[in-house]
Amino acid sequence: VLPSGIVYLDGNSLGPLAVGVTERLRRTVGEEWGTVLGPAWGSCGWMEAPERVGDRIARLIGARPGEVLVADTTSIALAKLVGAALAARPERHLVLSSEDNFPSDLFAIAGAARLAGAELRVVKRSELAGALDGEVALVCLTHVDFRTGELYDIAAVTAAARAAGSLALFDLCHSAGAVPVGLEEHGVDLAVGCTYKYLNGGPGSPSFLYVRGELQGDLENPLPGWLGHREPFGFDLSFEPADGIGRFRTSTPPVVALAALDAALDAFEGVTIEQVRAKSMSLGQLFVEVVEDAGVDGLEVASPVDPERRGSHVALRHPRSEEIVAGAAARGVIGDFRAPDLARFGLSPLYLSFEEVYTAAEVVVSTARALAA
Amino acid sequence: VLPSGIVYLDGNSLGPLAVGVTERLRRTVGEEWGTVLGPAWGSCGWMEAPERVGDRIARLIGARPGEVLVADTTSIALAKLVGAALAARPERHLVLSSEDNFPSDLFAIAGAARLAGAELRVVKRSELAGALDGEVALVCLTHVDFRTGELYDIAAVTAAARAAGSLALFDLCHSAGAVPVGLEEHGVDLAVGCTYKYLNGGPGSPSFLYVRGELQGDLENPLPGWLGHREPFGFDLSFEPADGIGRFRTSTPPVVALAALDAALDAFEGVTIEQVRAKSMSLGQLFVEVVEDAGVDGLEVASPVDPERRGSHVALRHPRSEEIVAGAAARGVIGDFRAPDLARFGLSPLYLSFEEVYTAAEVVVSTARALAA
Repeated sequence: VLPSGIVYLDGNSLGPLAVGVTERLRRTVGEEWGTVLGPAWGSCGWMEAPERVGDRIARLIGARPGEVLVADTTSIALAKLVGAALAARPERHLVLSSEDNFPSDLFAIAGAARLAGAELRVVKRSELAGALDGEVALVCLTHVDFRTGELYDIAAVTAAARAAGSLALFDLCHSAGAVPVGLEEHGVDLAVGCTYKYLNGGPGSPSFLYVRGELQGDLENPLPGWLGHREPFGFDLSFEPADGIGRFRTSTPPVVALAALDAALDAFEGVTIEQVRAKSMSLGQLFVEVVEDAGVDGLEVASPVDPERRGSHVALRHPRSEEIVAGAAARGVIGDFRAPDLARFGLSPLYLSFEEVYTAAEVVVSTARALAA
Repeated sequence: VLPSGIVYLDGNSLGPLAVGVTERLRRTVGEEWGTVLGPAWGSCGWMEAPERVGDRIARLIGARPGEVLVADTTSIALAKLVGAALAARPERHLVLSSEDNFPSDLFAIAGAARLAGAELRVVKRSELAGALDGEVALVCLTHVDFRTGELYDIAAVTAAARAAGSLALFDLCHSAGAVPVGLEEHGVDLAVGCTYKYLNGGPGSPSFLYVRGELQGDLENPLPGWLGHREPFGFDLSFEPADGIGRFRTSTPPVVALAALDAALDAFEGVTIEQVRAKSMSLGQLFVEVVEDAGVDGLEVASPVDPERRGSHVALRHPRSEEIVAGAAARGVIGDFRAPDLARFGLSPLYLSFEEVYTAAEVVVSTARALAA
């Protein structure tokens, strides 16, 4: 449901409203909450939504049913999994990450590490392999660099972490719904991600967390609450964790936001993530080629030009990127600016045509050219 | 917006859909998300909603502007404040609570205490005063017993905690929007609560947390994330906490749920919480009198009969309470059952008339009498 006259290239930040979401909210809010009321917890599938919607996301990230839970926020999901991983490796005291991770993730990981009596060590990406020693309980990285869109090799990092006796966790905020992740294929241990970017769940929609099935029994949720209990309605004073991914639940599920997300995921029915990826790479190539062919002074492609090494957005670097983003927006092309000098353009394959992306790239180029002139 | 033919006495579990919520969601989802898209973060007040809606709740619980934040869930809010309190009292290693606290709170508090290298000690309510020694960093209690509705004396506990050098935290899930709390008046340090009971925020709507203004600078959020940073959009790798209540933010605000809650709070405009309380006590008395006058064998009032000592629900005890709740529901009176033997009836003053409550009490009584016969 996109307004006419704009090309929306900010879906890597906030995905747009999908067809069906409004109607679904009318049903969940107006009919379920509005007329079934409290008993809807038992009769409208509200309580099961975190796992049910999680299973729908699982398909898009190459996980198996029962491995993904939708709840909380990305940082809280990180705090849970980092804490759980550190408790499962009590003889190791480091979490390793890299400078190109989301700053927010670094804050959340550092906080969780501190609580566990461990420490976060942040190195350059190129220094990761050398830093992966016997002190490292967990390696936490982003799958896609939120600045440049660089796509990292999950398989290689997971294998290296395993060889070093560490667990590996990936942030999939910029890949879920745009890039195949292959969690099962690569034997990834842990992952988190938001649902409001390429999954189009809505502003502040809940995050998801993934725990490899074989690991679930060995990990405990360090932020427990009644809904992670084996029998939440027993109102027992002692905590017995649920089996499976449900043990990572804490509180009452955010029903309205889950309904919006569930409806938004309908857009992924009938397509494979490989098809989504193929179109994303082509859209990216088109955008990159227009920019490179134009050769505007000072404007360079900050993303990898090889589409295989790039997620689903293209970042351009220019000293006056903020003005380029504002100028393009005034002409109907919405991207976003990331300090100090990046203009980012998200290429969501589900709702963008080649024509739109071509036109948008031309608008960006001519806006940059006008600035330089 | 209540369906006809029912008397809804389960608002202490899930408040009903309020007038204006549907229209507000249409605006936030359809217009803001749907047409302004990503830029709505800057132009539609989304980013400020946690504090703005928090200030609206502050008025209802006797807090000052800038002391309440809406975010996350009650258990996560508890984990934040318990962790912060323990870090601020490093020489003390106990959190004290009582058996009548929410089991979920006990799980969350125990989890947070464990992470901080401290321990939760759970005693009977009558043993609290004796247990409040120099090892106790924090006392965590519910304001209203979720089973019996018993209302506890916040002022006395806060004063005793202060005298012992401890902080005091209250769970206001069953009081916010129904009972005056007087956080400022009693000098309460910390509080949390959900917004889906008497505040009618919707299923799984976000929780709130309160930190007394004077304490905010001394406490650190143990679950940090980018939105608690002084400059979230600086994308700095080192964490500098924001001033004020904003430091307890972690992740992106749940915009859609916040919009629903914000609209639901409109129902409290033009009334004081003291007016709400006065009607709540009268409704409770009416309900209790009908039950007591009926004298049904085996059916007793489990709540305090003194309205000053009771929150906004009345609990009845009967060996077959589950059947009483089901039977009354079949006749249009919706309460809820809490194992092993309680039937709870919430008396939300904003939408219940005396006539409805009288009728409902008669239905409950005659359902119980039919069972006994």
